[in-house]
Amino acid sequence: MKGRKLHVISDGKLSLEAFAEIAGEVEPFADKFHLREKHRTSRELYTGIQLLLKKGIPVNKIVINDRADVAWAFKTGVQLAYHSLSVHVVKMHFPDILIGCSVHSPEEAEEAALHGADYLLFGHIYPTESKKGVPPRGIAALDAVKKSCDIPVVAIGGINHGNVPEVVMSGADGIAVMSGILQAKDPLEAAKLFSMKLNEEG
Amino acid sequence: MKGRKLHVISDGKLSLEAFAEIAGEVEPFADKFHLREKHRTSRELYTGIQLLLKKGIPVNKIVINDRADVAWAFKTGVQLAYHSLSVHVVKMHFPDILIGCSVHSPEEAEEAALHGADYLLFGHIYPTESKKGVPPRGIAALDAVKKSCDIPVVAIGGINHGNVPEVVMSGADGIAVMSGILQAKDPLEAAKLFSMKLNEEG
Repeated sequence: MKGRKLHVISDGKLSLEAFAEIAGEVEPFADKFHLREKHRTSRELYTGIQLLLKKGIPVNKIVINDRADVAWAFKTGVQLAYHSLSVHVVKMHFPDILIGCSVHSPEEAEEAALHGADYLLFGHIYPTESKKGVPPRGIAALDAVKKSCDIPVVAIGGINHGNVPEVVMSGADGIAVMSGILQAKDPLEAAKLFSMKLNEEG
Repeated sequence: MKGRKLHVISDGKLSLEAFAEIAGEVEPFADKFHLREKHRTSRELYTGIQLLLKKGIPVNKIVINDRADVAWAFKTGVQLAYHSLSVHVVKMHFPDILIGCSVHSPEEAEEAALHGADYLLFGHIYPTESKKGVPPRGIAALDAVKKSCDIPVVAIGGINHGNVPEVVMSGADGIAVMSGILQAKDPLEAAKLFSMKLNEEG
């Protein structure tokens, strides 16, 4: 076991209850659960965290997209993007919460790491429904990002059981999955298999 | 002078630069400047605050709608609504920042005051373009809200120079204005007149 991480990201389509239900089920095999629900209010996100906690998700496995205030209220992690408060600002005013940063180039990766991000999300690696029409960045770009910084890089976008070995070979410290688990017939089996493949020796 | 307050609220239409420009101009006559820009990202709001500060607006005159995280980064005030984190949660996790709460009934007013809101925004009092088709709550409702709590109540919605005396008579501790200043031919003169009328003895 190399301890590569499996992140499960909400898709903004499931109800918060349905996401919490799946999260509760796959929890032993996943390391982070992201509420990435851009259309939701802060009050709804607050409720979403409560639902996850009720399903037994430890608070340190929860990550809130963009809203550092909601994250801070529970001391969950926060996932920042280019439109969010900067890593630097969040680090300064919300000390000790886990900060993930979504990056799209080695330069962004380097900067985020320099300012104190705890890990990076990089993608999308493969074509994916959620980024239809946008060319994927591919495995070589993942490798370049990985070399640009010394913090964990989690790969996202179109990752399925079949391409996990390739992603791992390119140096990913983890993967982030939406539909591969949330839309699987058997989310628990899907999560188990992702987890196993992530930590197979090459 | 009874020290009734004049709040100027951004309308989500002006550029942040244009709003900051007007704010800088009317600053001596206004007590609060709200960035109420629901379509903007936290990074844009952060820039908006920087623009206001550059125009000489004191940080304690700035109020950010909904985003407690952005407010917290500068220690500005925050204006909460029903979709925001609750007053109780913000009070606990963001101590010492000014908390305004938008309410629509005496019950909501009582609850917000109980949980530690510093002041209330209540409206809309008169018909207004920004709440087209929604019946105004009127002066009697303002009076009821005022009697339900012991924190300052700032009236909002369709307030113009002509109806300020009536609003003041109903017990308002201040007024909040958007178009009455932002769309005035001479925002400085408009703000001066609002300020004067607010604090005239009846």
